[in-house]
This record gives sequence, C-alpha cells and structure tokens, in this order.
Amino acid sequence: MSAVRAIGGRLILVPNTLDLGAPQAPPIDAVLPAGVLRHAARLAYWIAEDAKTTRAFLKRVNAAVPLARPLQSIDIRELPRPPKGQRSGVVAIDLAPLLAPALAGADIGLISEAGLPGVADPGAALVAKAHQLGIEVLPLAGPSSLMLALAASGLNGQSFAFVGYLPTDAIERTARLHALQQHSRRERQTQIAIETPYRNAALMTALLEALHPQTQLAVACGLTLPAGWCLTRSVAQWREAPPAFDDKHLPAVFLWLAA
Amino acid sequence: MSAVRAIGGRLILVPNTLDLGAPQAPPIDAVLPAGVLRHAARLAYWIAEDAKTTRAFLKRVNAAVPLARPLQSIDIRELPRPPKGQRSGVVAIDLAPLLAPALAGADIGLISEAGLPGVADPGAALVAKAHQLGIEVLPLAGPSSLMLALAASGLNGQSFAFVGYLPTDAIERTARLHALQQHSRRERQTQIAIETPYRNAALMTALLEALHPQTQLAVACGLTLPAGWCLTRSVAQWREAPPAFDDKHLPAVFLWLAA
Repeated sequence: MSAVRAIGGRLILVPNTLDLGAPQAPPIDAVLPAGVLRHAARLAYWIAEDAKTTRAFLKRVNAAVPLARPLQSIDIRELPRPPKGQRSGVVAIDLAPLLAPALAGADIGLISEAGLPGVADPGAALVAKAHQLGIEVLPLAGPSSLMLALAASGLNGQSFAFVGYLPTDAIERTARLHALQQHSRRERQTQIAIETPYRNAALMTALLEALHPQTQLAVACGLTLPAGWCLTRSVAQWREAPPAFDDKHLPAVFLWLAA
Repeated sequence: MSAVRAIGGRLILVPNTLDLGAPQAPPIDAVLPAGVLRHAARLAYWIAEDAKTTRAFLKRVNAAVPLARPLQSIDIRELPRPPKGQRSGVVAIDLAPLLAPALAGADIGLISEAGLPGVADPGAALVAKAHQLGIEVLPLAGPSSLMLALAASGLNGQSFAFVGYLPTDAIERTARLHALQQHSRRERQTQIAIETPYRNAALMTALLEALHPQTQLAVACGLTLPAGWCLTRSVAQWREAPPAFDDKHLPAVFLWLAA
C-alpha cells in the first residue's frame, strides 16, 4: 500500500489502563506493553478525552519510562464533548485544527479515559477526520474491557455484538432486550452491553427479568483490578443468587447468549 | 463476590502477539505487557491451540523474563480441534480432564495462535467448562486485532458486530452482505469480518461488488507489524483504487458502516 501511504506525522492511538486511577490500580506495566510506554513518553502532542487524567497518565508513564520533555511543555487538547444527553452523536465541530501538528510532521497521541480510544469511547470522529486528511493512523496494542470480558465469559467469540448502553426507560429497555435476545438466538451471537457503574445492579435486575431462564449471562466486573471478577451462569441460576456489586465505582460488562 | 469466589488454581487467559512469528515481528514487549510476560514465565501448565507455536512463544517470553522451569518440563496440552469444515461448532469431547491441574490447585494458561483466546479463536468452550466447574477465570490484557482495527477505522465504536467469516459461496456471500449492510444501516452498527489471508483480495472484490457506494469500508492489514496499515474509504473511492494485499500472509480485518 506504499502508493497511498500518508506522509507527515501520524495519529497514534494510545491505549489507557482500565483502572481509571483507582487506589488499588495495578502497576501500569501489568496492562500496558513497554512499547506503548515508550511511544507515550516521547509524544509532544496529545488529543484526549480529558486533559487532567491524561496528565495523571503521563505521570505514571514517567515513573516507568522518563518523558522526553517536561510535562508542562506537552500540548494536550481535549476532544469536543458531545451535547448533553447525547452519548456519541455527530459532532458538528470541525476537528481538522486539532490535527494540524500531524499535517506539520509531528506525531499526535489520542487517548481516552480507559482502554482503546474510539471503542465504546470518544475518538472515532477524530480518527475518521485523520483518514479524510490522509494522516496515517497507528493503533497501539492495549487492553479492551469488552474483549477481556468476552474472552473470560466463555460465550461465543466467533460472533458477537457490542450494543453500548441500553435505554433507561424500563419499557423501552425490556423491548430492546427482547429484540436483542431474539437476534442472539437467530445469529448465535453474544450480545455485550455496558452501564454507568452505579446503575450496574439495576441493569442486572432488568436483565434477569427480561431474559429467558436458559439464556447464558456473564458479568465481568473491574477486570484487570485486584477486586475484578467474571462469572457466567444461566439466567435461572443468577435469579437464585444475584451478584452483589459491592463497589459502586467498578465498571462492569454484561454479556448474554440465547440458548 | 467473595461468597462465590472459586478456590484452587485459575484458568489464566494469556494473550499472544498478532505476528504469528513473522520474520518482521516486533519485539514481544511492543505488544504484550510485562505483567503478561511475568505470568507466562511462571506457569507450569498450558492449554494451547497449537503446542509447537506455544513453545516458540515461551522461547520469546524467556528472552524477556526467564522461565521458572525448563521448557521441556512445561506441560502443554492442545485443545481438541473442531471437525473439518466446522470453524467453531460444538465440541462433544469432555474438556474437564484438561482442567484437572486447576482443580488440584495449579494455575493453567490458555493461549491461542494470536490475540485473546476465545475471541475469533478457539478456547471459549474450555472457558465455559471452567465456569461450570467453579474455576476462576483470569483474563490478561493484550492485543485484539479486531479492536485495534475498529479503533483505527474511525467507524462507529459505540455499536459494532463481529460476524466472523463470510460464506465462500458467491451467491450466499452476496445475500449475507446485503443483510449485514441493512442491519448496519438500521442499527448504525459497524460490521466486522475476517478472512483467511490468501483470500483477502477475493473478499475485497466481493465487498466492493455487494456494498453500497456510500458505505464506509475500512481495511486493516497486518496491524502491529512494521508493514501494517489501515485505511478507511467509501466503497465508491475503493472501487477507483482497490488495495494491493501484496503480502499473501498478512491477516486483514474488514469493517463497514452503511451510510
């Protein structure tokens, strides 16, 4: 593909840890490759979901691989936030100015709050803009909570769908779960959803009410953290002993496969 | 979840690199966290998609983190292979004996040829058996070619489906692509498929014939390798300049989102 290979700086997709800076966070090198830390330590330009947590991330990187320049001199811009109540949506703001350093020849790092940017996280619109401008996009290997949960669930990993957040309205949510369960059965496809951590118990209740007793349901909570766990049961088994969600801050991933 | 926490050894899901031992493979620490290498170096029991490539993997680990015991003394069992012509399917063989070391208190590593075991790869049935037997499953952070491709595509990462391999029969494949494109449009869901590397060019031709000119189509080839690339174009743009796939061994991921 050398004929269409872009010139200039690249947009480098830098994975973040999954611990969101929790006090019980594992060492950064437990979840991020040394190659990622080396890339992160040399970048002068960043585009981030959140500038403050990116600085905290760079301090953790610095403890493992010294930064090439003082943290204060690193240029960190924030991604425009979607309008309130709109989780992903089309952002009308022109993203091209954020990518100016790449057009001028410098690599830019893109980072989100956890995991891979653009996967269940902001960043995709910026990556799309980079493709439009002919900027090379380089994704670096790192953890994805969705894929860790899928691997740990033992459910079908040859066909799966991530459906994001479910509707908050109870009637809409039940209808959506019935449709997704039917799709899961027809396609033998694992369905994957997430929720804001403090609503995990409520989503679990909704899943146990709406899904068929024989549907396999996996819950993965706080993966990569010491308190992390993943369990797979039939809905019938979960109804007898629902999980606790003791820690209201631990993110969870919910996965189900209809029998 | 301490009440249901399993006792005994764990089934540890160990990610592999994505280079399949290619001559141009990057250093192992470019894609795998040091924490993964430390886990891999101490395990005495492995269950693998392929024993030979697992020994090659452990030699690479040993160069970074010395193995806790001689390679010859490490117990490596192979996953039963699905019957010919059946890519995933239900394996009737009892997998419980493979997990005996965990019931006896020892950790077991599960590893596939590339990426995370059980994700577009064998292993899920063994993980499901571990859950049934009350064995704790611990997934370690590592690269997923599907998620790297998704992040690098700039397509919708808030809703996506991995559909595995497409039918090889041309008529069935076209019908399947039309159905998937319609589903992509209705759900605003990125569709992700893979193919055996030597068939990448043929799949690309089929995609360009079957998909709508305005559908966005991304191709990610050889990610994490020096020759790796990812490009996103409309089908109409690709038709004018299809990609080359010069290297017939590089794995590729195909992603599309209907307009």
